[in-house]
Amino acid sequence: MIEQIKEPYLLTPGPLTTSHATKATMLRDWGSWDDDFNSVTADIRTQLLAMAEAASDEYACVPMQGSGTFAVESALACATDPSGKVLVLMNGAYGKRAAQLLDMMGRRYVTLDKGDYLPPQPQEVAALLRQDSEITAVFLVHCETSSGILNPLDVIAEVVSAHGKTLIVDAMSSFGGIPISLAKTPIDVLISSANKCIEGVPGFGFVIIRQTLLAAGKGRAHSLSLDLHAQWDYMERTGQWRFTPPTHTVVAFQAALVQHREEGGVPGRCARYTRNRDALVKGMRALGFSTLLEDEWLSPIITTFLSPTDPAFEFDTFYAALKMRGFLIYPGKLTEVESFRIGCIGQLGITVIALLLSAIREALADMDVSLTADPRSA
Amino acid sequence: MIEQIKEPYLLTPGPLTTSHATKATMLRDWGSWDDDFNSVTADIRTQLLAMAEAASDEYACVPMQGSGTFAVESALACATDPSGKVLVLMNGAYGKRAAQLLDMMGRRYVTLDKGDYLPPQPQEVAALLRQDSEITAVFLVHCETSSGILNPLDVIAEVVSAHGKTLIVDAMSSFGGIPISLAKTPIDVLISSANKCIEGVPGFGFVIIRQTLLAAGKGRAHSLSLDLHAQWDYMERTGQWRFTPPTHTVVAFQAALVQHREEGGVPGRCARYTRNRDALVKGMRALGFSTLLEDEWLSPIITTFLSPTDPAFEFDTFYAALKMRGFLIYPGKLTEVESFRIGCIGQLGITVIALLLSAIREALADMDVSLTADPRSA
Ligand SMILES: Cc1ncc(COP(=O)(O)O)c(C=O)c1O
Ligand SMILES: Cc1ncc(COP(=O)(O)O)c(C=O)c1O
Repeated sequence: MIEQIKEPYLLTPGPLTTSHATKATMLRDWGSWDDDFNSVTADIRTQLLAMAEAASDEYACVPMQGSGTFAVESALACATDPSGKVLVLMNGAYGKRAAQLLDMMGRRYVTLDKGDYLPPQPQEVAALLRQDSEITAVFLVHCETSSGILNPLDVIAEVVSAHGKTLIVDAMSSFGGIPISLAKTPIDVLISSANKCIEGVPGFGFVIIRQTLLAAGKGRAHSLSLDLHAQWDYMERTGQWRFTPPTHTVVAFQAALVQHREEGGVPGRCARYTRNRDALVKGMRALGFSTLLEDEWLSPIITTFLSPTDPAFEFDTFYAALKMRGFLIYPGKLTEVESFRIGCIGQLGITVIALLLSAIREALADMDVSLTADPRSA
Repeated sequence: MIEQIKEPYLLTPGPLTTSHATKATMLRDWGSWDDDFNSVTADIRTQLLAMAEAASDEYACVPMQGSGTFAVESALACATDPSGKVLVLMNGAYGKRAAQLLDMMGRRYVTLDKGDYLPPQPQEVAALLRQDSEITAVFLVHCETSSGILNPLDVIAEVVSAHGKTLIVDAMSSFGGIPISLAKTPIDVLISSANKCIEGVPGFGFVIIRQTLLAAGKGRAHSLSLDLHAQWDYMERTGQWRFTPPTHTVVAFQAALVQHREEGGVPGRCARYTRNRDALVKGMRALGFSTLLEDEWLSPIITTFLSPTDPAFEFDTFYAALKMRGFLIYPGKLTEVESFRIGCIGQLGITVIALLLSAIREALADMDVSLTADPRSA
């Protein structure tokens, strides 16, 4: 009998498996108003701008307490003109959530909804921008974590910029793991959080935003806590967070940034995640699973696999069998087909992927599910 | 020469000094959707209701990501009727903040502003409720952390209840350290956070709210992230937080609750904090400092001391001298007189207070400040 392993590997898109070194920094308490903590905050802000290749005289980095959605909400409230209109590009749950956020704050928007996983095309975006001159900003999810698709950020950014509109990118699950350069790609607002590719623990998100937009966002917020301009203004004046920061999470994030640099920054991390993804997809196809997406659209962040049609396959049993073997995977988030997701990010490499694949083989045997290898795995 | 001590004691009202056992639980990662984590969340919610002596069929406990202000904002949005009016009782920064929150969300309110530190009187509240029948709810800060005053919660609750109005209490800095019983005192909404008297690390707050108010709050939120009803509804249905929870903070909080129980619950903790406060006030008066408040209003949470009038006293120098000796204190938050604050909460007892008092004596000597002992210290 296999005993349950105490701490499972998180094959999820965050919260994810973090290093011991990152977590060990949380064994200390910090005064949230003290200079020592303020310099951690300042350092993080500087490093994030550098990671995004964002000029520090053009952009600012503003952290925000709460989960990633809190940061998206604060960014949308600050960066969208209440008298303008946003074009929300949707192909999954996080594009939908942006529309919900705009609804809630009474900002006008239109959507280009591509369903569960099709990528928005630059020419479609161009056509919409030509048709509707009221559109002032475009919202795009970079890696739409609900399917794992990596949306074509660069080409869409070119179109948005050519039309002189603001581009807001939800790079929650991609920033730090997939190269994004604000020096090369015209992005006005980029949002991410502590517990994704930078491999920190959850507790805050951050917004990298063009300073002119930040200035224009003064007084636009619908919420005191989520007022991005006020947070930035207070931080600039005092070095402190406006309300109590998640001190331990912030310090852990600084440690995670050191390790990110040591791994070779974004290219180094992207290489490891890509190796994980390649080993995972190859191994899963050999076991008889199919990916939802064609290879061209697979991100190195998370991959959606279609649930086998064999009626003996049941997600809950599969999940429990993998958990018992020390791995947590993610349920699917598609509206039309049965699926599940496996993340490739966090402190793990191809050795863990190989162990996971063995566990999956065993779980299938337990469930009496028999599959035929996908020819692409050969 | 004194070397700087690595980890200072936090003589602050939170984030505060937490136990090693609490922090050590953060050395593990948790799947935020997994049953194991969901049972931590469920356990915390149950324990908080029990700590408040709130009947579980009448009240619900809803945690909310972010700092304490985020929880206050979500509670006000849910529990105040958009067509009603709130009476905000103010005697410091946190009463003011509630008014700012209501402003931001466009809810009507009136204030009873007692300035920097005078307590609101029950008869004043009664008069206002009689005068203005549009008032539907009253907001009170229990321990107004900006001066340290413990406002007269019980008598004000009686008045509010006698008038049939909703009482919303910001018990951020008091809950868990000062007895509050929802079975005995008519309170409809109580707000606190992880990093105060329960001695967890910062990252979330929580709202204990009458279920009928929660139901009435459906659809009232001005913010998606801070929608208390939606958070509750999702948690009831799935056991999960609606958006990514600060997993490590949540698990640390569960450990902090165990230690809270082991110390004898609220009475046990209150006894220790009171001993800290008594030792601190006595020692400070012996050194020549005066408290802002009369003894009757001093809370066991944090005490405001008036800055000495000796021109040789300078807060920044004083702060640095104490920090060098391993203690962080808090600046004052009064608008009219120079002051500073020293917290009595967190993982520390009278031994630490004695060390602090020696450090203060040394700091005064360094600065060449000479004071005369307060006669009350005898
Ligand atoms: C692309 C994307 N956007 C937004 C979010 C929301 O983040 P959170 O769950 O931290 O609120 C996520 C979470 O996985 C995400 O992947
Ligand atoms: C009484 C009271 N209310 C509200 C707050 C705000 O909490 P936070 O700083 O976590 O947002 C505090 C913080 O100390 C407080 O003491």
